[in-house]
Amino acid sequence: MSAEKLVIVGGDAAAMSAASQARRGRVDLDIVAFEEGRYVSYAACGIPYYVGGVVDSFDKLLIRTPEEFRQKQSIEARVRQEVVHVLPAEAKVVVRDLESRREYEEPYDHLLIATGGKAVWPALPGIDSRDVFGMSTLDDAKALRERLERERPGRVVIVGGGYIGLEMAEAFMRRGLDVSIVGRAPELLRSIDPDMGALVSGALVKTGVHLYLGEAATAFEGTGGRVSAVVTERRTLPADLVVVGVGFRPNTDLARDAGLPLGFKDAIKVDDHMRAAVERVWAAGDCVETVQLVTGRPHWASVATVASKQGRVAGTNIAGGDASFRGTCGTMITKVGPVEISRTGLSETDLSDGEIPFVSVKIDTRTSARYYPGTEPMSVKLIAERGTGRLLGGQIVGGAGAAMRINVLATGLQARMTIDEIARLDLAYAPPFSSVWDPLLLAARELCAEC
Amino acid sequence: MSAEKLVIVGGDAAAMSAASQARRGRVDLDIVAFEEGRYVSYAACGIPYYVGGVVDSFDKLLIRTPEEFRQKQSIEARVRQEVVHVLPAEAKVVVRDLESRREYEEPYDHLLIATGGKAVWPALPGIDSRDVFGMSTLDDAKALRERLERERPGRVVIVGGGYIGLEMAEAFMRRGLDVSIVGRAPELLRSIDPDMGALVSGALVKTGVHLYLGEAATAFEGTGGRVSAVVTERRTLPADLVVVGVGFRPNTDLARDAGLPLGFKDAIKVDDHMRAAVERVWAAGDCVETVQLVTGRPHWASVATVASKQGRVAGTNIAGGDASFRGTCGTMITKVGPVEISRTGLSETDLSDGEIPFVSVKIDTRTSARYYPGTEPMSVKLIAERGTGRLLGGQIVGGAGAAMRINVLATGLQARMTIDEIARLDLAYAPPFSSVWDPLLLAARELCAEC
Repeated sequence: MSAEKLVIVGGDAAAMSAASQARRGRVDLDIVAFEEGRYVSYAACGIPYYVGGVVDSFDKLLIRTPEEFRQKQSIEARVRQEVVHVLPAEAKVVVRDLESRREYEEPYDHLLIATGGKAVWPALPGIDSRDVFGMSTLDDAKALRERLERERPGRVVIVGGGYIGLEMAEAFMRRGLDVSIVGRAPELLRSIDPDMGALVSGALVKTGVHLYLGEAATAFEGTGGRVSAVVTERRTLPADLVVVGVGFRPNTDLARDAGLPLGFKDAIKVDDHMRAAVERVWAAGDCVETVQLVTGRPHWASVATVASKQGRVAGTNIAGGDASFRGTCGTMITKVGPVEISRTGLSETDLSDGEIPFVSVKIDTRTSARYYPGTEPMSVKLIAERGTGRLLGGQIVGGAGAAMRINVLATGLQARMTIDEIARLDLAYAPPFSSVWDPLLLAARELCAEC
Repeated sequence: MSAEKLVIVGGDAAAMSAASQARRGRVDLDIVAFEEGRYVSYAACGIPYYVGGVVDSFDKLLIRTPEEFRQKQSIEARVRQEVVHVLPAEAKVVVRDLESRREYEEPYDHLLIATGGKAVWPALPGIDSRDVFGMSTLDDAKALRERLERERPGRVVIVGGGYIGLEMAEAFMRRGLDVSIVGRAPELLRSIDPDMGALVSGALVKTGVHLYLGEAATAFEGTGGRVSAVVTERRTLPADLVVVGVGFRPNTDLARDAGLPLGFKDAIKVDDHMRAAVERVWAAGDCVETVQLVTGRPHWASVATVASKQGRVAGTNIAGGDASFRGTCGTMITKVGPVEISRTGLSETDLSDGEIPFVSVKIDTRTSARYYPGTEPMSVKLIAERGTGRLLGGQIVGGAGAAMRINVLATGLQARMTIDEIARLDLAYAPPFSSVWDPLLLAARELCAEC
């Protein structure tokens, strides 16, 4: 009897974490991962830093190559192989070799779908221009950096004011470009509330970025496959280069075709062991639905941490172990120029349906002792359930040292702490690191009075 | 009938937090604080940074002057006034005016003892030399900085390898002195375990500090009130200047004389409302016993955060409110040169009595994504109860961005989380801030396997 086989659709965080963990659990398993692109196990989150030149070499984004997977872990990672059908009834997948265009079948004993997410690509006139870049694959990053270094464009317009838009803005600022951001929402970063978003916009404008918020891009002007301007609802912005980052969603067409039940945002429904609703099929990463731990409701997260953890859980269980992934608080962090931004749990916007009554506070304070040089401004917003005082969420915008404090709130959320308990935390203090009353304690103390 | 009077013995963190909070609660209260020194409400933790010149002006260490307390809050803060007796039976204190040497009585309705801590001052030959400095008051700091700027000494020996010793080492390094530390313990910082302390020593030695550990200072040599060398059990170290920081303990002689019950390390016994065991007497800050939250046992903490919180609680209750302080996890943080250090909860040393069986892990990792420039080494130690997996403590040593992560563990301790729960935390990730698996998650994951 031949060995059992694990087939994985995908080759990044969730896929390769699962592969590695399955190998740790079972040395006898055949493990094959099919990846459409040219690379597996790469640092997609590092793309903006590679484009900006903070990360000098492309190879640094490649965490592990197919050769390394084969040699070190006996895992076969096949690139440029697109899985075109999943056939659960026959326990096999149909794969297309993107080089030879040949199709072949691959049977499985266990199947892990880790197809990730895909960028929303708006059907706007001119979007097919070779000056308009998406930013979701390493090939995108490579092409964009080559373009920047070869043609030295002067004006870039970023369409989208989310995390990708902001991180790309930082990259272009580093390279000295004239940077504009066009965003349909009235503020940057819809995962934080507008009052906190306004702090980010204010700081960005100071660094010289032009913001056009509350207006959608409607077309890309230009001739001969080139772009000369981005047209919005209100103006025409000259541009040599455009980056579009207007959203991301679960990449689940394959799963849908295979008959797997989909849930929130069309993400694949899985249990806490990462089992899909069809026998021998598992799923993990940006393509699956998860749970918002604060509400217990369906949620979708598109972050490498969640994907890695889910992949690890899937791999453990596929190998016969017992692991679970219970959900996410929605913790996010980024920086743009000198401004750090983080959030966790629910925002006031998330709570605007009125189902959970809440109180909130926003304080403006500093990252360290006021007399300590290098102290930076920092704003904290805390949100708690009215009545019970249970912490619901938090947001931070500030200078160096501000944003990572969000982890205290993420921990508090997971422990279902009240604001009173947050106010009692024994947080670290020394003048280079904090004020005597840590900003989180100050905010919690103030919110306690209202709970 | 005249107003009720709150008399406070002391004028720093606990004392003035209590005064301010009592004023918020009751506008009608007479509030008088007696402070031996020349200053009230000062940033004692800023002393090393003032000496080192990081904080340029002395006035920045003065948070609020007696004039400001009088004008803004109608609080009378009298400096250079030593309370020499507390007479609970008569509800009064005896005060000595240190300028006029006159003694007078002051009756009280409520008394708050906030006498803080005092530095251990070893009775070694030559310690009275004018070149030997303690480092517990602003006057010490002022005198030392004046000396440094006037005489430009070349060689300083620090006696004591604790927090004060390390922070002073950083100060002297900044000023270009040749710095030696003599410590009786075999490693620096006894509040962390020797394996973590060794990381600190290693880094300090690289920056050029000379360490003489495991050997006690026995005398200070010199003539005419000057010091020329520090003699240890093993050697004689030439010195132009000496700083002694060998320990700190509760300053409770006054409380003892007044018949107040003392506890751990002779700190004043108080309940969670900061009431001492005698009617109308309260106590807060470095002079009181508190609770180690992890064990529930008596504990003593000497940090500004705890003192401020306790003062606030005392002030609230004195004014008729209802607040409590439940204890501390023993969270500490500092930095010396490029090395950040933090700890919380119990160390292996604390657990060496064997009462709580434990497992521990120490991992060496990095502060941010490996490919992100400026990533720094970082070591994490986690300790959990064997069997239950309950988190007992953590220690961190590393470069910029490492130490403040301790707050996640402090939060986890307060929530009585298990290591499995720590490993499941949804901590923030972006390449400038963390690896995909945060160092704390990596350590927890590894420790889980042993619990």
